[in-house]
Amino acid sequence: MNADELLQSSVVELSRGIELGELTSERLTSACIERVREREPEVQAWAYFDADLALETARMLDRTPRIGPLHGIPVAIKDIMDTAQMPTAYGSPIYTGYCPKIDAAPVAAVRAAGGLIFGKAITAEFAHRLPGHTRNPLDLERTPGGSSSGCVAAVADGMAPIALTTQTTASTIRPASFCGLVGYRPSFGIMGLMGVKQSAPAMDTVGIIARTVGDCALMRDVLLEKPTRPPTVQTDAKLRIGFCRTPFWDKVEPEARALIEATVASFAAEGAEVRDLDTPDAFAELQACHRRITSYELVRSLTAERREHMALLSPLLREGRMTDGMRVSFEDYIDAVEILERARAFAGEFFQPYDFVVCPATSGIAPKGLSSTGLSEFCVLWTSLHVPAITVPLSTRIDNMPLGIQLVGRRGHDMRLFDHALWVESRV
Amino acid sequence: MNADELLQSSVVELSRGIELGELTSERLTSACIERVREREPEVQAWAYFDADLALETARMLDRTPRIGPLHGIPVAIKDIMDTAQMPTAYGSPIYTGYCPKIDAAPVAAVRAAGGLIFGKAITAEFAHRLPGHTRNPLDLERTPGGSSSGCVAAVADGMAPIALTTQTTASTIRPASFCGLVGYRPSFGIMGLMGVKQSAPAMDTVGIIARTVGDCALMRDVLLEKPTRPPTVQTDAKLRIGFCRTPFWDKVEPEARALIEATVASFAAEGAEVRDLDTPDAFAELQACHRRITSYELVRSLTAERREHMALLSPLLREGRMTDGMRVSFEDYIDAVEILERARAFAGEFFQPYDFVVCPATSGIAPKGLSSTGLSEFCVLWTSLHVPAITVPLSTRIDNMPLGIQLVGRRGHDMRLFDHALWVESRV
Repeated sequence: MNADELLQSSVVELSRGIELGELTSERLTSACIERVREREPEVQAWAYFDADLALETARMLDRTPRIGPLHGIPVAIKDIMDTAQMPTAYGSPIYTGYCPKIDAAPVAAVRAAGGLIFGKAITAEFAHRLPGHTRNPLDLERTPGGSSSGCVAAVADGMAPIALTTQTTASTIRPASFCGLVGYRPSFGIMGLMGVKQSAPAMDTVGIIARTVGDCALMRDVLLEKPTRPPTVQTDAKLRIGFCRTPFWDKVEPEARALIEATVASFAAEGAEVRDLDTPDAFAELQACHRRITSYELVRSLTAERREHMALLSPLLREGRMTDGMRVSFEDYIDAVEILERARAFAGEFFQPYDFVVCPATSGIAPKGLSSTGLSEFCVLWTSLHVPAITVPLSTRIDNMPLGIQLVGRRGHDMRLFDHALWVESRV
Repeated sequence: MNADELLQSSVVELSRGIELGELTSERLTSACIERVREREPEVQAWAYFDADLALETARMLDRTPRIGPLHGIPVAIKDIMDTAQMPTAYGSPIYTGYCPKIDAAPVAAVRAAGGLIFGKAITAEFAHRLPGHTRNPLDLERTPGGSSSGCVAAVADGMAPIALTTQTTASTIRPASFCGLVGYRPSFGIMGLMGVKQSAPAMDTVGIIARTVGDCALMRDVLLEKPTRPPTVQTDAKLRIGFCRTPFWDKVEPEARALIEATVASFAAEGAEVRDLDTPDAFAELQACHRRITSYELVRSLTAERREHMALLSPLLREGRMTDGMRVSFEDYIDAVEILERARAFAGEFFQPYDFVVCPATSGIAPKGLSSTGLSEFCVLWTSLHVPAITVPLSTRIDNMPLGIQLVGRRGHDMRLFDHALWVESRV
């Protein structure tokens, strides 16, 4: 593989190359470093990057017998996760230069699989909404989406083949859709979050951003510390697909709407049984409940920052979400929690008739400007239901920009959702 | 107040004394320090204690205008919570000498109310089961219970008037019952846990251990950053009490069983309407589900410690719970989560006919020896249901040792549960 190929390859291919001795971690890491040097001034993906440390680690891994499926693969880490070897600032000046004692749980799992912690990618302040200065590498005038802005830019731009992110509302699915990548938000609770800065514990999960469905699945197995099991297309039965435009369909831009409709129609043309699917009444309050719960929890997660370092919080957080959060009463919080639990009890029935549900990932392509990271409506239902979601990039572009389509499945049926995502990936 | 009175007073009394200028934080703190000097060699409650820092903080608070309801009150902090001014070791040699960057959320709330962070109290390793060397101050041959062993010993022995703890299974209610104190585990999710070392995020909460129901209620308001609202006995209607012996009643020691029966009978004699209450079939699997979920999550929360510092984990954790946790499959975990959510949806109906439910707090008085921290059965149902629980000490002793009785209420009805606990406290 030449350098350009290295920078666009999947982790599965790169890992095979390293395993067969056709590629070294040093060569791959050097190519990534070179790309960072060339592009970082414009893209601004990194909160912390140490080329020497990365190269030294790559050489060390090249001398070490293979540890696991990520052996020698550079992994971008959202700077909301603790790393023992690199500073961690959670996107906030309160933590400038802070060096955690120990790796966050997902970082430790990556290292245990031989992965190379490549650098800390820019996150919105405490993974909330304050946009960083990261640009969309596919069009520098556009947002990459957030809050996992640095990770998505790094992977889309060839600086790193895969990234660990988080999602509390839309922070993985949305940027992946905006940058033409695969994004995965797992079923809630299945992956350890120790050392990942909390935002709203009732919603926070790890996320993965990668170039292919197979890469996301590989990383998922690494985070679960399971033997790798690549997704496979199930061909034995007719696929049953629920097409859920969501209650926010009128917010989807016309061209995106047309592209999504055409894509779903093509699934039917391939023989899948597609049925339109409305969200049930039980889901009507989910968005409001999500907002109440995340507001209540965010302000309480950040008690120390708010009480002891208020002046270093952004005005967006200080005057916006913090004020909202203190206004949510204890009773309203508990009420929202109970509504969500009842909706979740109903979700099995909602998903049961389908192999998967397909819906928009975002309202359209990445918006121009860096002042907003985009709408979160198309994730908030699924995030609240604690179900797994995968966005797959469509090959047709709008204004030369990519768009993702989101697949959603039953809680805990993540592996099957990957199988279906592979089928979709090969058709879009 | 003389020194002995200071050491047994409630926080409400001490706080009033400081507010009225009849008592200084320095005098109170000095008395507590003296008590620590005298008793620590035998009781061994503290993981970190700096008398000079405590005294200096007390003097500073005496010079400062009143900040809040805990102004100048020494508070013991379970060493599972980060403190910016004191090392934090989570009961593990992995973290010896570790100094966190910022206070945990509950610690910051205490400081924001004027509280004095008095010292770090011994915790079981990662708030799990490995007993520390803390002894029960009421009988040094007995366990104080765990995992909040240092906190409960400190408050029971007059070293500190109140303590912040945690509960994932029984870690607050159990030791409070063993040491004759009031213990409170709040409704799940209502208090921020940032900076509190995770054990099982689906179950972890902050806890409070104090000498009176009123003190617990005061600290609860501080942690919620609400104006203080002391509990009041509701006298307008006949109390409806559900007496739930739990499915584990045969594990309760005969003398404890008799004392609990007599206590509940006395409530009926006072005019309360007491009805026996069996746990419904929907709760049958809760204990097994709790075990599965906490095992699955503990092992994943501790990924970095397990992968990078395995030799420094205790054999109890390394060979026991860690192995169990890796055996719980992804599917079994999700299954347990769904069973619990359905049980929670049913819990409202279970509690609805009663003002509160009364049940054992522990299987009896604190066991002899330090090798076990006691059974957790009498907490596991309520912990899993995410409902609030308060244990109130009975004045009748068994073998000269105290026993608590546990009150449980609906999720989110914590404040009303405090009102009822006050009624119980004045009658037992």
